[in-house]
Amino acid sequence: MEPNATSADGVWRNLRPIPELTACDRALPAGELAALVVQGGLLRWAGPTGAVPAAYAALPQWDGGGALAMPGLVDCHTHLVYGGQRAHEFAMRLAGATYEEVAMAGGGIASSVRATREASEDELFALAEQRLQALLAEGVCAIEIKSGYGLALAHERKQLRVARRLGEVYGVTVRTTFLGAHALPPEYAGQPGGSQDYIDRVCHEMLPALAAEGLVDAVDVFCERIAFTLAETEQVFRAAQALGLPVKLHAEQLSDMGGATLAARYGALSCDHIEHLSAEGIAAMKAAGTVAVLLPGAYYTLRDTHLPPIAQLRAAGVPMAVSTDHNPGTSPCLSLLLMANMACTLFRLTVPEALMGITTHAARALGLQDTHGLLAAGRPANFVLWPFAEAAELAYWFGHQPARTIVRQGQVVQGATSVAPQGARHGV
Amino acid sequence: MEPNATSADGVWRNLRPIPELTACDRALPAGELAALVVQGGLLRWAGPTGAVPAAYAALPQWDGGGALAMPGLVDCHTHLVYGGQRAHEFAMRLAGATYEEVAMAGGGIASSVRATREASEDELFALAEQRLQALLAEGVCAIEIKSGYGLALAHERKQLRVARRLGEVYGVTVRTTFLGAHALPPEYAGQPGGSQDYIDRVCHEMLPALAAEGLVDAVDVFCERIAFTLAETEQVFRAAQALGLPVKLHAEQLSDMGGATLAARYGALSCDHIEHLSAEGIAAMKAAGTVAVLLPGAYYTLRDTHLPPIAQLRAAGVPMAVSTDHNPGTSPCLSLLLMANMACTLFRLTVPEALMGITTHAARALGLQDTHGLLAAGRPANFVLWPFAEAAELAYWFGHQPARTIVRQGQVVQGATSVAPQGARHGV
Ligand SMILES: [Zn+2]
Ligand SMILES: [Zn+2]
Repeated sequence: MEPNATSADGVWRNLRPIPELTACDRALPAGELAALVVQGGLLRWAGPTGAVPAAYAALPQWDGGGALAMPGLVDCHTHLVYGGQRAHEFAMRLAGATYEEVAMAGGGIASSVRATREASEDELFALAEQRLQALLAEGVCAIEIKSGYGLALAHERKQLRVARRLGEVYGVTVRTTFLGAHALPPEYAGQPGGSQDYIDRVCHEMLPALAAEGLVDAVDVFCERIAFTLAETEQVFRAAQALGLPVKLHAEQLSDMGGATLAARYGALSCDHIEHLSAEGIAAMKAAGTVAVLLPGAYYTLRDTHLPPIAQLRAAGVPMAVSTDHNPGTSPCLSLLLMANMACTLFRLTVPEALMGITTHAARALGLQDTHGLLAAGRPANFVLWPFAEAAELAYWFGHQPARTIVRQGQVVQGATSVAPQGARHGV
Repeated sequence: MEPNATSADGVWRNLRPIPELTACDRALPAGELAALVVQGGLLRWAGPTGAVPAAYAALPQWDGGGALAMPGLVDCHTHLVYGGQRAHEFAMRLAGATYEEVAMAGGGIASSVRATREASEDELFALAEQRLQALLAEGVCAIEIKSGYGLALAHERKQLRVARRLGEVYGVTVRTTFLGAHALPPEYAGQPGGSQDYIDRVCHEMLPALAAEGLVDAVDVFCERIAFTLAETEQVFRAAQALGLPVKLHAEQLSDMGGATLAARYGALSCDHIEHLSAEGIAAMKAAGTVAVLLPGAYYTLRDTHLPPIAQLRAAGVPMAVSTDHNPGTSPCLSLLLMANMACTLFRLTVPEALMGITTHAARALGLQDTHGLLAAGRPANFVLWPFAEAAELAYWFGHQPARTIVRQGQVVQGATSVAPQGARHGV
């Protein structure tokens, strides 16, 4: 929680809601602004400013001044906790170094694994905290954080403990995902049967231990020719299922592995990347209610040209989420709004699709569809006010950090001054 | 100038300079940090912290704490002053509207011309000010601002007056560019000879009047099949030359018009866009000392696939600048650091090229090579301190707004607290 946070309880008047992202108590008359009522940290009511129930009249009155109101953003796919960074590798590649030269210089995912293993929990926290602050400043109110750079029990535990601690210290909803099956650890590389040995360890040692410690909200696998096979993926899914944990999948990023169909069979929350997703995968996801998580930052950084099958996902009615995929190798990206712009520009999502992608559908990809990603009565108060005339501006401008008011978990954590309650002692 | 600005005069110790962007008094011994001396708003000395001349010992002492030090950023191609915005058009296109439907709904450049003409000078200032603030917060210390949405004397004047006023109010170096020949004004469209009539007006009425008012630092033309011909471009260049004004050109963005060769013949400061630049154009630019201005934000937004000839420009030794091209139609971009990232990712510039592109070479594109874009004694104090371990991080991370200290025109305009002078009364 930021030091100046103040309770958001009260009536927030004169807001312009985004229809797709707001469940109003009754329809807004043309030209009338909306109000939100917050009490006890929960959103109690949303509707026309002129129709706020009398029961709330005594609450502090906040003036939104006509700002655009949106549910708090949800970043549903990040690898936020890791040691070091890979700017040097980025520079080397641009200077013409081959992948081998980068690897010889200690680059690639192995360098992030090494730096993560060498870092203490406090060091990992200090690094991740800076990245988290950038996302929170833009209005993120819920975030998924994966392990997967430790690749050994003690180090995966460190990553997940840091993720939990970030949630507590910053008053933000954090969903942890165990991604032990992210890459083959260096100490298994080149060993006959090394991949199966490691997957056995993931399933029978690491996952049960971390789940028992309450560190695992979901389980993920990187299913790809350069990572783990479909059969290995299914072993991890079975282990998750046995523990009652939901699964998700890094699926069909570089090739069609059939991962999405498998994941859907296990009722996956989401399949992510999916540039090479097949029609069969789409049908299976639709049937299972699995969310398609689009990651334009990695697509952009890798200069990928194989677009995910957006039109087919749209036609099938598969919900599409959009996320930063923040990670040090293929998406050192720290803006979810920029991802909304890239989802429109590169993937041709419509503006409402992009905005639902970073709120409602992202919440669904985390199993948070009943608490996050929609302005509706009964949910924790998480919302952002933007100085925009229309919702499309959120995806149109890019590279900026628009001024805003942020309410997270019932607290005004940013920009309280501009909306301070009238005649109340709550102003900061 | 921001209200809390304070003089940056003093000795700034413990900085890590970027070699390509710093002219040190003597080489830094390995492992030693650098110092900058500011006096009377000018950078007086740069060199090893241990070798600061005794003459400066009595000045306030600022502690850079090991931050990366870089000259203030230079954004050398923007259309920052305009009425309205075009988010609605962005959304319409994504929803499947054709160009005709957008035009029928009042979209396209005509909508920006209409909104600019309808806006008062104060209204244009208020809009442009918000955009400028985003760029300044990232460390921009010099910026080019073009006219070209007025397309009539009174309205072009409004745009250029607002540009000048932004420079005065914000204490930032503004270079104005008259771009009357941006598009054919709607009232000339469809008239036989309308294009030549308008160019006559640009050359004989608008440019002389605005130059006489001191509003024109350079003259630009959009030379393209959809805009003005090579012959019309040359007429504008002759009019500029007659007034002693330097020229620049929107050249070869959509096709090879031969514009770069023509511009070089007139000693152009820069040719901008240049996706379709020919070998002949490159040679002419090299001979004339003309800067190649790369605009990856427009390339990205237009989903262009025709890359500018980077390798050939590099081989020829043509200096390459990188800019936002901020404009409401094809680059509603508000981050020069993001453009450095896109220049690397999309255009494969090396990191030093990208960083010189937003400093030294951008300054040259504005004729500011003797005062901006390099940390060197005798220049106005314009610099930025970043919390990074290495320069490559500036282009590697994307979508963030890194915490920093900004010194602009000899004033600490941001982040003074973290570096407040020891034992001095200057802290804010
Ligand atoms: Zn990922
Ligand atoms: Zn332009």
